[in-house]
Amino acid sequence: MNPIPAHQLLSQLRWRYATKKFDSQRRISPADWQTLEDAVILSPSSFGLQPWRFFVIDDPHLRQKLRELSWNQPQITDASHLVVFAVKHNPGEADVERHIDRISRVRGVPREKLDGLRQMMLGSMNRPGGDLDNWLSRQVYIALGVFLTSAALLGIDACPMEGFDGAKYDDLLGLPAKGYSARVVATAGYRAADDPAAQAPKVRFEPHTVVEHI
Amino acid sequence: MNPIPAHQLLSQLRWRYATKKFDSQRRISPADWQTLEDAVILSPSSFGLQPWRFFVIDDPHLRQKLRELSWNQPQITDASHLVVFAVKHNPGEADVERHIDRISRVRGVPREKLDGLRQMMLGSMNRPGGDLDNWLSRQVYIALGVFLTSAALLGIDACPMEGFDGAKYDDLLGLPAKGYSARVVATAGYRAADDPAAQAPKVRFEPHTVVEHI
Repeated sequence: MNPIPAHQLLSQLRWRYATKKFDSQRRISPADWQTLEDAVILSPSSFGLQPWRFFVIDDPHLRQKLRELSWNQPQITDASHLVVFAVKHNPGEADVERHIDRISRVRGVPREKLDGLRQMMLGSMNRPGGDLDNWLSRQVYIALGVFLTSAALLGIDACPMEGFDGAKYDDLLGLPAKGYSARVVATAGYRAADDPAAQAPKVRFEPHTVVEHI
Repeated sequence: MNPIPAHQLLSQLRWRYATKKFDSQRRISPADWQTLEDAVILSPSSFGLQPWRFFVIDDPHLRQKLRELSWNQPQITDASHLVVFAVKHNPGEADVERHIDRISRVRGVPREKLDGLRQMMLGSMNRPGGDLDNWLSRQVYIALGVFLTSAALLGIDACPMEGFDGAKYDDLLGLPAKGYSARVVATAGYRAADDPAAQAPKVRFEPHTVVEHI
């Protein structure tokens, strides 16, 4: 255990903002990017199901096309890295079995001892289609929160983005064939020196209207 | 800017787990809890709308009743702190105006210069009821991710929980009258020395099946 002091956490969270203009010349080092990948893999999810995949778009031509599907927002091409947070499409029993297999192997627990957990997971996934997708999409947003917080802690800028055509992203990236669907995007890199958004004071409601003690 | 080293981020994220048994005698200090409140208030959200409220349940009688509405899971009463992440119910034009007011005040920008942003926010909120709630609920899960990551960084244990009766939570806490609805819960405190879950190896799929480069 090697915690950080409160002031360091808060100073980095205050330093964070949704970067509008990235320095297109600055790249996140391979080691730092690997750390961000490792961090997002460690995100919590309901039952540990990890109903997601994170697609990192390295191909500049693809990024140009994705920008056109994202209201031409420049972060899509100018940020060092672009990651598409995708949800597993309509998972079912096979996904639960895969997870049970993994738990069994990692923890050295016989599969039959995991039957109660299996039943709980199956029960929880037995929802009408839209409800299942919404529940799992929320898990993807936990991962987004982990990613953005981790980037801020490392001193890496980021911008979460929902303003894109998800169906066209899916088609272009071939996600349906892989069993996934794009839900949210994050761009990451380093702010441009002249990004006006970097100077704008952070806007939050008064704390007493956001946190209420009962 | 005062970033932390990669190994410290990852060691704290690996130290984190969904705590099943809290030490009911150990309390989070008021200063540390305040840090967690400050951190979650800083969570990003679409347009910065902050479509949420975080209800911290201090009353032990209420926590006992909530435990009964949560499959009797002991964390609800045994953890140092319990926070209910709630989404704004069916927000509309008044909420957008409140946000515009706040931006105008904090940044010293005349309201009329924010009209483009106002129109974008109104357009984005103009979704059929269920879609609006689902979109905003995802924002709440970003805040959950920020909370859990922040707690881990501070060396505070936590457990995110979805296994509760949301409608009965709402009724008991009077959330509908306040305009909110419970979406997810986090308990926080310190792991009991004998929590078996603390010793279980973390289960994640193989990284190459979770992060894919395109």
